[in-house]
Amino acid sequence: MRRIRYQVACSLDAYIADLDGKTGWIVDEPAIDFGALFDQFDTLLMGRLTYEGLVKDAAGFWGKTVLVFSHTLRQEDHPQVTVVSRDAQSLLQQMRSLPGKDIWLFGGGELFQSLLALGCVDTVEPAIVPVLLGGGRPLLPTPAVQHRLTLTSHQVFPSGIVWLEYTVNPPAESSA
Amino acid sequence: MRRIRYQVACSLDAYIADLDGKTGWIVDEPAIDFGALFDQFDTLLMGRLTYEGLVKDAAGFWGKTVLVFSHTLRQEDHPQVTVVSRDAQSLLQQMRSLPGKDIWLFGGGELFQSLLALGCVDTVEPAIVPVLLGGGRPLLPTPAVQHRLTLTSHQVFPSGIVWLEYTVNPPAESSA
Repeated sequence: MRRIRYQVACSLDAYIADLDGKTGWIVDEPAIDFGALFDQFDTLLMGRLTYEGLVKDAAGFWGKTVLVFSHTLRQEDHPQVTVVSRDAQSLLQQMRSLPGKDIWLFGGGELFQSLLALGCVDTVEPAIVPVLLGGGRPLLPTPAVQHRLTLTSHQVFPSGIVWLEYTVNPPAESSA
Repeated sequence: MRRIRYQVACSLDAYIADLDGKTGWIVDEPAIDFGALFDQFDTLLMGRLTYEGLVKDAAGFWGKTVLVFSHTLRQEDHPQVTVVSRDAQSLLQQMRSLPGKDIWLFGGGELFQSLLALGCVDTVEPAIVPVLLGGGRPLLPTPAVQHRLTLTSHQVFPSGIVWLEYTVNPPAESSA
């Protein structure tokens, strides 16, 4: 079964971008093999903001299939991606059951919030950057339903980045 | 030199209490030696909310010296603690230079926000609990100035708690 994985860099105070939407605060970490990371996925999920931030620079989106979740974009204006405006849950359930590599919930926080509520996120994998941003775009916007997690792995890098991997527990096991 | 250390349990989305101000979501972790932890400190710093939440239960505050930062509490009503209403920075600088154990910034987030801005926090030591709260009282309320951190140690516990220790870099080294 393919997994839907929210793999993202965040600050210690749990922001994925600063107040200007920038990520220049993410420290370099030569020890992370981004090629190997990208190779674990064949599909990217993103919200409209993330898509619009990427579309100018990421020609071809590294050869991945891209689904953009938006109620405003028109499919005919964006032929290089699939625009998803409804039935996200059934679409993602179906994709999970098809053969393929894992599915990267690429960003941003609002999409994570929506898909978490739909039970469509299998793992949360923050690379915690050693910085306090003091404000910005949250890892998980509020309000969201409480979810228990299970830590499945951790890695600490020379830069001070702490890369954690959690599975998301089903809601029945998540109540406090 | 004594250090002022913000040692606190938080969720992965960086809340130190849920929307009701409760901490029942913090998982038990028998492997943490709370006695040894408490023994590293002889002084507790706290804001009014934390103080009022503790004062009923924590008789004598475990024998520690307690400073409560508040503009509304009156010293004469709270003889068991020292109420600090002004000159926090010079008082804390002086305390740091006196002999003694480390000083625990016990909570909450607003006090951390204030003391961080004053350059009066040496370390941030979150015990990250494997849960997404989706809202609550933030580890660091916004807006706060960006601060770079240096990871100095990490521990992973069977419960999935990840205990990180960072030193706070001086502001000159914190600009992006």
